[in-house]
Amino acid sequence: MKRRALISVYDKTNIVSFAKALIKHDFEIISTGGTYSVLKEAGIKVIPVMQVTDSKEILNGRVKTLHPAIHGGILAVRNDDHHMAQLNEESIHPIDLVCVNLYPFSETVNKESTSFNEAIEQIDIGGPTLLRAAAKNHKYVTVITDTNDYQSVITELNQCGETTPDTRRRLATTVFFHTADYDSKIASYLNQEEFPETITLSYKRKQILRYGENPHQKAALYSDSHINNTLILRTKQLHGKDLSYNNIKDANTASDIINEYSAPTVVALKHMNPCGIGSAKTIYDAWIKAYDGDQISIFGGIIATNQVIDHQTAIEMGKLFLELIIAPGFTEEALQLLKKRKNTRLLELIDERKDEQCFNITTVTDGLLMQEQDQKKVNLNQLEIPTKKKPCNEEFEQLLFAWKAVKHVKSNAIVIAKDSQTIGIGAGQMNRVGAAEIALRQAGDKCRGAVLASDGFFPMPDTVELAVKYGISSIIQPGGSIRDQDSIDACNKHGISMVLTKTRHFKH
Amino acid sequence: MKRRALISVYDKTNIVSFAKALIKHDFEIISTGGTYSVLKEAGIKVIPVMQVTDSKEILNGRVKTLHPAIHGGILAVRNDDHHMAQLNEESIHPIDLVCVNLYPFSETVNKESTSFNEAIEQIDIGGPTLLRAAAKNHKYVTVITDTNDYQSVITELNQCGETTPDTRRRLATTVFFHTADYDSKIASYLNQEEFPETITLSYKRKQILRYGENPHQKAALYSDSHINNTLILRTKQLHGKDLSYNNIKDANTASDIINEYSAPTVVALKHMNPCGIGSAKTIYDAWIKAYDGDQISIFGGIIATNQVIDHQTAIEMGKLFLELIIAPGFTEEALQLLKKRKNTRLLELIDERKDEQCFNITTVTDGLLMQEQDQKKVNLNQLEIPTKKKPCNEEFEQLLFAWKAVKHVKSNAIVIAKDSQTIGIGAGQMNRVGAAEIALRQAGDKCRGAVLASDGFFPMPDTVELAVKYGISSIIQPGGSIRDQDSIDACNKHGISMVLTKTRHFKH
Repeated sequence: MKRRALISVYDKTNIVSFAKALIKHDFEIISTGGTYSVLKEAGIKVIPVMQVTDSKEILNGRVKTLHPAIHGGILAVRNDDHHMAQLNEESIHPIDLVCVNLYPFSETVNKESTSFNEAIEQIDIGGPTLLRAAAKNHKYVTVITDTNDYQSVITELNQCGETTPDTRRRLATTVFFHTADYDSKIASYLNQEEFPETITLSYKRKQILRYGENPHQKAALYSDSHINNTLILRTKQLHGKDLSYNNIKDANTASDIINEYSAPTVVALKHMNPCGIGSAKTIYDAWIKAYDGDQISIFGGIIATNQVIDHQTAIEMGKLFLELIIAPGFTEEALQLLKKRKNTRLLELIDERKDEQCFNITTVTDGLLMQEQDQKKVNLNQLEIPTKKKPCNEEFEQLLFAWKAVKHVKSNAIVIAKDSQTIGIGAGQMNRVGAAEIALRQAGDKCRGAVLASDGFFPMPDTVELAVKYGISSIIQPGGSIRDQDSIDACNKHGISMVLTKTRHFKH
Repeated sequence: MKRRALISVYDKTNIVSFAKALIKHDFEIISTGGTYSVLKEAGIKVIPVMQVTDSKEILNGRVKTLHPAIHGGILAVRNDDHHMAQLNEESIHPIDLVCVNLYPFSETVNKESTSFNEAIEQIDIGGPTLLRAAAKNHKYVTVITDTNDYQSVITELNQCGETTPDTRRRLATTVFFHTADYDSKIASYLNQEEFPETITLSYKRKQILRYGENPHQKAALYSDSHINNTLILRTKQLHGKDLSYNNIKDANTASDIINEYSAPTVVALKHMNPCGIGSAKTIYDAWIKAYDGDQISIFGGIIATNQVIDHQTAIEMGKLFLELIIAPGFTEEALQLLKKRKNTRLLELIDERKDEQCFNITTVTDGLLMQEQDQKKVNLNQLEIPTKKKPCNEEFEQLLFAWKAVKHVKSNAIVIAKDSQTIGIGAGQMNRVGAAEIALRQAGDKCRGAVLASDGFFPMPDTVELAVKYGISSIIQPGGSIRDQDSIDACNKHGISMVLTKTRHFKH
């Protein structure tokens, strides 16, 4: 009895050459609809599925292959005499290879013009059933859903006349990952709840990384499976070695920070915290400010900017060892110059970040935490100034500059800023006044007339008292402590201003 | 024509009462196999599927419902005259309700005794096809896979004689999340690659949280979908309000840290960093050390211990405001005393953490990073002592104590320890010597004879020089800088010892 292959594909890439190769290996081919026509036109002998099932296609193709003659042929256990006798009795011919790919549900629903009914019509029922049946019986049946797998199957047929058990298991695994992905996309499309009872998240591997946070940890980067591009973090790599795990995490944070600023701005980042941020009229001046913000920590750091990097800025950046630079562009001169640094990765930002609401995921033991990303922008109408002294315009501008920065510093966080430059950053401390001490000490004498931002409220007036000692002239913080009045009193006593945002920006 | 319901369930909970309710609403019931027998025995009138398909069940039940008579009945678009004419022509009776739950693949493969063949046999083909077909056609068909949904369907039938379109869509969404989850479990079982090309991760919602890291961020806690229990982080909550997002993250980290220590130990944690760790002969003494490690930051903190909390320790803990206490147990007296604190959550650790390799997931723009958790323990054979002075036994013990702690402090991290107590913790700094300054300044005079641990290597000898000034007697760090020799020379110059671990513990 000839071996049989069932072919039914939406994506017809290479299907003719694949079918011809199967014919060469003495397969009979059965097929339906569009695939049938394509193979027929290419001069390949094809048996229509209707002939196998002895039934009509009904309901505009909604029911074609959901038939015992097909599924019996796929699912029979070949070394089970009872199974094989039943096939015989029912005149069912075994099917040894199933090649199916599905209606493109994701692509369809991502088009804005797609109506709900059109989307529903794209939910493939017969295809996944063929794939799942063949994958279940992969001990005997070869199942192919990825057009990239045609070649390896043909190679094995050429070499051994049949596929190996390992290959069949690998192909079956691909199928179940694919049907899981497919159904998770459908579920997400139909879902109307913010946090549904079951969630299924599906990702495509982009890259196996050299290692994770540390060399003894294996790691990989995955993309949202509906995103079909070659970008990493919406950037294109122009130069340098592959991004490491820490590079990717740092670059992602640096991009989040730069996204806060509209004036020409440079962000320097190290160990997931900004170490220097500067805004100015030109990128060169912004760079100088970011660099001067912390000349020690920037070594081996990550740079992100919202401006095209020019030659003059590139010369200065090129003097330092930087792990990675992200910019919306580089002038030709700047690019040539920076490319001389073998260990600096250059990333061109292709897509601007959009303000669509995203979710963060963090794993904990036996599960995960899912939360909306912190995309809250300051609401000027919500600000309250409870102190007698009010910030002047320049102070107010600096307070907003510092507030955008402190949102992205790990908690407890304090940022000191002056002239659109961070001059002291206290990050990741277990108590607030400790964070203030670090930031104020770093800024030192520059604190005179500078502003201070805090990501959380002041539980006590000690931070205000300390800030005043250093010469801070205005403070921005969420407020909301039961002892807010103590901090307000401290400001009034020393004649400085304080703004309350009513919004906390913890980040851990 | 009577409405028809197809019922085929593995989990037969409440199926008889559900079927009786459908009969009351004038449904005809069709069914197969075990479900058929159960309904029949309960005196319910049931039509066997074989009678509908006019075919035999074949291949030991592998093919029962994969038939046009069933799937045509489910998939026909009721307001499409052409579809309905075809049903008529083929004598296919529409199916209006599908109630199916699947072979328990996950539960089967989680049993160690399950063979590969048994697992494969549990892959349901007919069931998911029925569910998916009905869910696709949810505009007309009611589909139920979760036994918890029987009641709401019956309630709607009682109220309106039919289900509402919203309910049918919700039920269809549940189906696709469920089939996605089901196939993702099968894929993971078959998968032999560490980082497969597609991954599908499936989780069950445990709790919608009040909010996320900040009040303006919505958040939820999900568990691995194959874990079926009521624990959070393998703990049972004995007292207090629901855990917040930050509580869960902090508690998870505190549990990771306590897991490093075998002697009676108490860990105090704040903002994802330990602020005090103490080991001693008794939990009381360990608590005193953890508390004394940083009496300021512990306020509002998280406590984890590996010992049953006794009355004496509870008295001391009860004097402070603590957000959460995790322990393997509490004596009755301790529990009664701590329960008086309304705002302190008490968690009893039920399951010891196992050393199975786990993966961390972190989201980045358009994708995620996946890495092995950092579960590396110190390897005594791998340690190198390149200094002339070698640590004495007591110093060596303290170095290991500090090394376990620094692994869990955010990078750059420095820990100062003496007498099995952390006395200075420098966390989350953008440069290493900055972290050392914070830790050493905190420990102050206590530094004499203490040890210092660093999570990363020293790029320069400045940290050693600073440590010596404070009186540190021994240092532990990964080594691996091209300038290691400078730090070794500095140790030798000042007559202190240094141990290299060859393992970095960055944590961000």
